[in-house]
Amino acid sequence: MSSVLRHSAKFTTSGFFSLLSGNCSHGRTFASPYFVSKNRYSSSPKIKVDLDSNNGVALMQFQSPPVNSLSLDFLTEFAISLEKLELDRSCKGVIITSAQPKVFSAGLDILEMFQKSPEHCAEFWKAVQEMWLKLYGSNKVTIAAINGSSPAGGCLLAMCCDYRIMADNPRYSIGLNETQLGIVAPFWFKDTMANTVGHRETEKGLQLGLLYSATEALKIGLVDQLVPEDQVLSTATETMTKWLAIPDHARQISKSMMRKPTIDRLLANKEPDIKQFVNFITKDSIQKSIGMYLEMLKRRKS
Amino acid sequence: MSSVLRHSAKFTTSGFFSLLSGNCSHGRTFASPYFVSKNRYSSSPKIKVDLDSNNGVALMQFQSPPVNSLSLDFLTEFAISLEKLELDRSCKGVIITSAQPKVFSAGLDILEMFQKSPEHCAEFWKAVQEMWLKLYGSNKVTIAAINGSSPAGGCLLAMCCDYRIMADNPRYSIGLNETQLGIVAPFWFKDTMANTVGHRETEKGLQLGLLYSATEALKIGLVDQLVPEDQVLSTATETMTKWLAIPDHARQISKSMMRKPTIDRLLANKEPDIKQFVNFITKDSIQKSIGMYLEMLKRRKS
Amino acid sequence: MSSVLRHSAKFTTSGFFSLLSGNCSHGRTFASPYFVSKNRYSSSPKIKVDLDSNNGVALMQFQSPPVNSLSLDFLTEFAISLEKLELDRSCKGVIITSAQPKVFSAGLDILEMFQKSPEHCAEFWKAVQEMWLKLYGSNKVTIAAINGSSPAGGCLLAMCCDYRIMADNPRYSIGLNETQLGIVAPFWFKDTMANTVGHRETEKGLQLGLLYSATEALKIGLVDQLVPEDQVLSTATETMTKWLAIPDHARQISKSMMRKPTIDRLLANKEPDIKQFVNFITKDSIQKSIGMYLEMLKRRKS
Repeated sequence: MSSVLRHSAKFTTSGFFSLLSGNCSHGRTFASPYFVSKNRYSSSPKIKVDLDSNNGVALMQFQSPPVNSLSLDFLTEFAISLEKLELDRSCKGVIITSAQPKVFSAGLDILEMFQKSPEHCAEFWKAVQEMWLKLYGSNKVTIAAINGSSPAGGCLLAMCCDYRIMADNPRYSIGLNETQLGIVAPFWFKDTMANTVGHRETEKGLQLGLLYSATEALKIGLVDQLVPEDQVLSTATETMTKWLAIPDHARQISKSMMRKPTIDRLLANKEPDIKQFVNFITKDSIQKSIGMYLEMLKRRKS
Repeated sequence: MSSVLRHSAKFTTSGFFSLLSGNCSHGRTFASPYFVSKNRYSSSPKIKVDLDSNNGVALMQFQSPPVNSLSLDFLTEFAISLEKLELDRSCKGVIITSAQPKVFSAGLDILEMFQKSPEHCAEFWKAVQEMWLKLYGSNKVTIAAINGSSPAGGCLLAMCCDYRIMADNPRYSIGLNETQLGIVAPFWFKDTMANTVGHRETEKGLQLGLLYSATEALKIGLVDQLVPEDQVLSTATETMTKWLAIPDHARQISKSMMRKPTIDRLLANKEPDIKQFVNFITKDSIQKSIGMYLEMLKRRKS
Repeated sequence: MSSVLRHSAKFTTSGFFSLLSGNCSHGRTFASPYFVSKNRYSSSPKIKVDLDSNNGVALMQFQSPPVNSLSLDFLTEFAISLEKLELDRSCKGVIITSAQPKVFSAGLDILEMFQKSPEHCAEFWKAVQEMWLKLYGSNKVTIAAINGSSPAGGCLLAMCCDYRIMADNPRYSIGLNETQLGIVAPFWFKDTMANTVGHRETEKGLQLGLLYSATEALKIGLVDQLVPEDQVLSTATETMTKWLAIPDHARQISKSMMRKPTIDRLLANKEPDIKQFVNFITKDSIQKSIGMYLEMLKRRKS
């Protein structure tokens, strides 16, 4: 089975666009009464990681303005941070959230695919694979505190977690909307969604590139819980406490048993998947389409 | 895995019977304001195909009295019509509906399996396979406008589409009710249902040969939407407009990614599946059972 | 893929515990107006089997105080009883229920895994496999009349049936809660749950070792119907009548078509699955953990 990002000449305005061009005027502040004993884990600019030594819970905050796009740098930093936590036995669980207003993550950074060498594209795609392999295969308890919109790769990040709490805000949406942009989610995005919401909803959602409102996302099981926006992080922390009460070794094996077949499918196809992506994305017609799309974004911004 | 039509000595009266013997006194008329610029595609008697050159939407109306049974002729005509549309780049989507009152399609024509040569039975079964392969694997957007009951093969036709709109009429039902007739849906019917409503509902539905009311069908996800009977076709047309707004190439690849494994399973087993069907259906005991069933139908009609 | 019972040093108090230590003071009596013509099938102490020659329905009542633990003796008796019914053409369906108050079955008997020889452990695990293979693969209509709590192996028993009716009692719960005890459900427990409630709910339920209340179990599809406690058995009998109205041969083939792939997975891995279990359970650390757990149970009882 093969599926990489592909294109169509036609573009529609989508949630993706509105995110990129969104007026991000009011920030959000994270009070952190939950992390009394802080051990600053990383001072890198794109992701802030705080591991609370009291409870073993790490908070990963995406702080890459304006919309936490998954650039090569972001993905590399994410993989390194998660790997560190994975190897740290004092870390029991990871909460992923955004420090940017109104957006969890806008997904893959399209600039990494525009006018780049095949080598760069391959490196980028490998980083996307690694992010997924590390997060979907993590032994830690992972909880997504979805405090903003979460299209495409942002939705994938959320789906990789063990539990998803989303802000009950009608302006936020989540979904694998690649099709709306004329591209196609690769097979492991599809597998992750099917494991979350089932075959039929995935078939419909991927074909239409659906962005679900928070309410719709809850209804189909794409997220597990909606809470008022200012309670997303505290609810994630409370939920984490419940998950950490479970015998850890048994929980890890159960998680692995559920996810291993899906992970093995990409592991067995990493190189062909990269090749396919590079062949596709470096095509003249695709590059032209991406260029037109970026032009459109620029015009809207100005 | 093997599964073909099989039998049991016991027959129960079922929705299937009531369809065949139904009093089809009042017809239904299809006003067609939606197809201003008509290009009559086929003048064949069993299926009326109109391709609207304005929007690229083809309307396939089943008009094979009394109940749009899927005879060899019907299936052949259906496959040819769909193949023509598939190859026609001006056609973007296909709406399937019935021009017969109260029934979408009653499913496979049992007469094609009664007192026929093994060669005929093989030809018939191949036609059933081709219908499924073409419709489930279609690159076009396919929408079922289910304006009547839709048991067995009729339900399969509907499940092959990308979206299902059903008349909100408590007298209409839909489901793979083969078991009620003492026969068994083949594995690819089963796969199609499991892809639509999941494993558990399929297990229960196939074992009991359940015919779901429109309301129940919506609840389990066998259909996507219920509308008043006189709005089925207009809703299908409106829905089609939304689907056609999606970049076509990306949508096609997404659809194929979801359905290819299921399609490949039959492609790898076409001949064994035909052999198994023929071996089974030509057995004396089965022929006798079918004969008794047809006798019962006759008596009920008179 | 590998998964056997595994452990964690940490134990939490769980539903399992409360069951084992439960004050089972008031019994439940089974009036049996439904079994007029009784043919006492087995007089064994742990399971009472009554086959009603009038309708071909066998009632299997678990009567192994205090909580119908699945000991080697119980499992052996269960397999023999079911095998007898399976070979008895006059038997059409089997209703499984409990004669003990407040519990359907508490699951695998932990004493069979404590301070036992590798040979004994292997024998025990083989018996668990056989129970599952026979019940999940049964040709008869099987209905679980869940008149009490049903954790772990008890939940598995229920999930193996074709239909599940549970007492609408907020004090009863059901689920594969192995993780709560620091152990892990094997892959075929997991497959059975995924076939019943889907991938996502299984992933969450297994990781957390969730015990669902009757209401929750209905909502996620873990059981099919809730009725007042005194109507569980009568509803099971009425439901059985509907299932027995379906042509039997066709129903059997449909059932087999749905379950065969799952059954084949264990059949292909019986020996490795046993070896893995024995290797694990006979480890000193595991034996120590089980010992501590049993000590805790003793202290709570006294």
